Amino acid sequence: MNTDVFLIGSGQTRFGEWWEKGIRDLMYEAIDGALESAPCTALDIDTVIVANMIAERTNAQAHLGALASSLLPHRPPALRVESACASGAVALHTACALLESGRAKTVLVLGVEKMTDVPPAEVSTALMGAADSEKDAPCGLTFPGIFGLVAQRYMFEYGLTREQLNTVSAAHHRNAVANPFAQFRAEIPAEKISQSPKVADPLCLLDCSPISDGAAACILSTAFESDMKLAASQLASDAVSLTERESITSFPATKKAMEKALEEADTDRSSISHIEVHDCFSIAAVINVEDLGFAEPGRGIELYEQADPVPTINASGGLKACGHPVAATGIKQLIDVSKQLRNSGNRWGLSHNFGGACASCGIHILEHIHV
Amino acid sequence: MNTDVFLIGSGQTRFGEWWEKGIRDLMYEAIDGALESAPCTALDIDTVIVANMIAERTNAQAHLGALASSLLPHRPPALRVESACASGAVALHTACALLESGRAKTVLVLGVEKMTDVPPAEVSTALMGAADSEKDAPCGLTFPGIFGLVAQRYMFEYGLTREQLNTVSAAHHRNAVANPFAQFRAEIPAEKISQSPKVADPLCLLDCSPISDGAAACILSTAFESDMKLAASQLASDAVSLTERESITSFPATKKAMEKALEEADTDRSSISHIEVHDCFSIAAVINVEDLGFAEPGRGIELYEQADPVPTINASGGLKACGHPVAATGIKQLIDVSKQLRNSGNRWGLSHNFGGACASCGIHILEHIHV
Repeated sequence: MNTDVFLIGSGQTRFGEWWEKGIRDLMYEAIDGALESAPCTALDIDTVIVANMIAERTNAQAHLGALASSLLPHRPPALRVESACASGAVALHTACALLESGRAKTVLVLGVEKMTDVPPAEVSTALMGAADSEKDAPCGLTFPGIFGLVAQRYMFEYGLTREQLNTVSAAHHRNAVANPFAQFRAEIPAEKISQSPKVADPLCLLDCSPISDGAAACILSTAFESDMKLAASQLASDAVSLTERESITSFPATKKAMEKALEEADTDRSSISHIEVHDCFSIAAVINVEDLGFAEPGRGIELYEQADPVPTINASGGLKACGHPVAATGIKQLIDVSKQLRNSGNRWGLSHNFGGACASCGIHILEHIHV
Repeated sequence: MNTDVFLIGSGQTRFGEWWEKGIRDLMYEAIDGALESAPCTALDIDTVIVANMIAERTNAQAHLGALASSLLPHRPPALRVESACASGAVALHTACALLESGRAKTVLVLGVEKMTDVPPAEVSTALMGAADSEKDAPCGLTFPGIFGLVAQRYMFEYGLTREQLNTVSAAHHRNAVANPFAQFRAEIPAEKISQSPKVADPLCLLDCSPISDGAAACILSTAFESDMKLAASQLASDAVSLTERESITSFPATKKAMEKALEEADTDRSSISHIEVHDCFSIAAVINVEDLGFAEPGRGIELYEQADPVPTINASGGLKACGHPVAATGIKQLIDVSKQLRNSGNRWGLSHNFGGACASCGIHILEHIHV
């Protein structure tokens, strides 16, 4: 970062099925929480960036930048960004650029998704917009199908067993018990994961992150300070279609973004104490910790087999147990990392958010200062 | 601008009904044109920003940043931005911030929309996402309806006649004859405008910009120079719902963005020789020239009643005659302003792009240097 950008406030709704709340209500609740925790007032917000993926289909609502702006008394300039399930990270990145450019001093970054008002089939179609609609979707693939293929291939290449994979969702559910904002706060024994209904072989229902409503908001600022400084914000892209990939058991966009993020933060991987990774499906979590460099290829599962892995992985409960209102996730991950750093007193934490089958990836490194 | 940002290349498809082309084909054609005209190669592009509003509904395709990135050999980081019909301007603004922050050196900004593959009713519903889905849409309003109300009220307040309003679309069609990229290149006598089928009284079919396919691309750079420098990039927001407005015959977001843009460019209104304004409906053009300060309230039509207005207004043909693939429009406007400045040898030009009923507005001022 060429300027000090501080995370000065944050708020979120609990993720879940909020049938009695509209998209505006969810946004308002997250904004309110963020302002409540920040040293600034609403009038200090000079730009609003909204992350959203599917409201055009599920809520007939585009133009969410202006809509969120109109929840503030002075209606500051606003825009919406989207990069499928990485929309949250991309919004944070856009905010960093606006702050570093000097165009903004205090930015509200808000991720929101209201997914449960339409039938699940409609949500699946909308989410499939993250894939290639000319090359992959016409084959009948859905995202559980795509990650089913990924898991099949990973098991073939590395010998991962179904029983081993169970440890991923089990760990995420165990972690979520302590998180009041998580959609599912029940411990689930590992063996129950593979006993849940099959969705896309070998993936079962409990390998999949749920459909959720929710919003999460961060206030980033160069004008106000806090103990949480953004040390790196990096994006990377890859081919959207699986047919253009060399491998489906490793995601180069994560590797590229991670390399650039470590360089930008001027730190090393071993200094990072807490990570939140994008576990849209259990197999993705395994691949992510490998691509981030915390495990060798094929050995990511070993981190999940440890009781206290270093770094901590998805201590919030991850997408699986917290819920996954897609564009809110990347922002909620950063909030969770900040909480973990404050609790542990450690210095470095990282959030990893991807879209599609990691056709876009955003990584943020947070530095806890004055420790 | 706190850094010199140059427009170093641009390209666009002709806007129209391109049933034989997909969204990827349109993007490719615009990118190809932009690279062809630029002093850089594809490999110099370090970030891609895609403006798109409705592809999630009309093409089942989100994630257009990554999709566009994968059309380049090195798949640079990418994101999509949206602010309804102002998406193009918002994408240019985001590019400016990335360039000024130093995060990017050469950015491809691409607007695309593929609107004619689905029935018009579906397009109308998708476009209505630019309005407030909780407050305005449930009343049965569509955008022609919203601007029909605006026109009714404007006529009531200022005595504008239906015959006077005819001059707007007639001028835009006359201008488009010379523009090879315009969807409609036929002159239409003024009296024919109000003889076309009534859409939303007093607006007729020929008061309304069409449904179009198309893409437009600009390459903005701090690493390469050209004779076209961005002098200002400003956004402003307003309430999305009409029910939260004090007036519907003037759009404060235009005024706010214009004031900031003139200040940023350090120039005055009278120096500007060419403007492209957002004439989604004829009445909008009249209001825009007033809000931009080129005419007094109620007297915008007088500029259209002159044979050679100063500044020139929508010399390209505007949205009415060029077509309006919504997110491509703001980028195509900047390209047109650059062409007009090169032709005239003048120094200052301006593009004005709005979303919804101007709930978001983006203004860019271009400076033609070495004149």
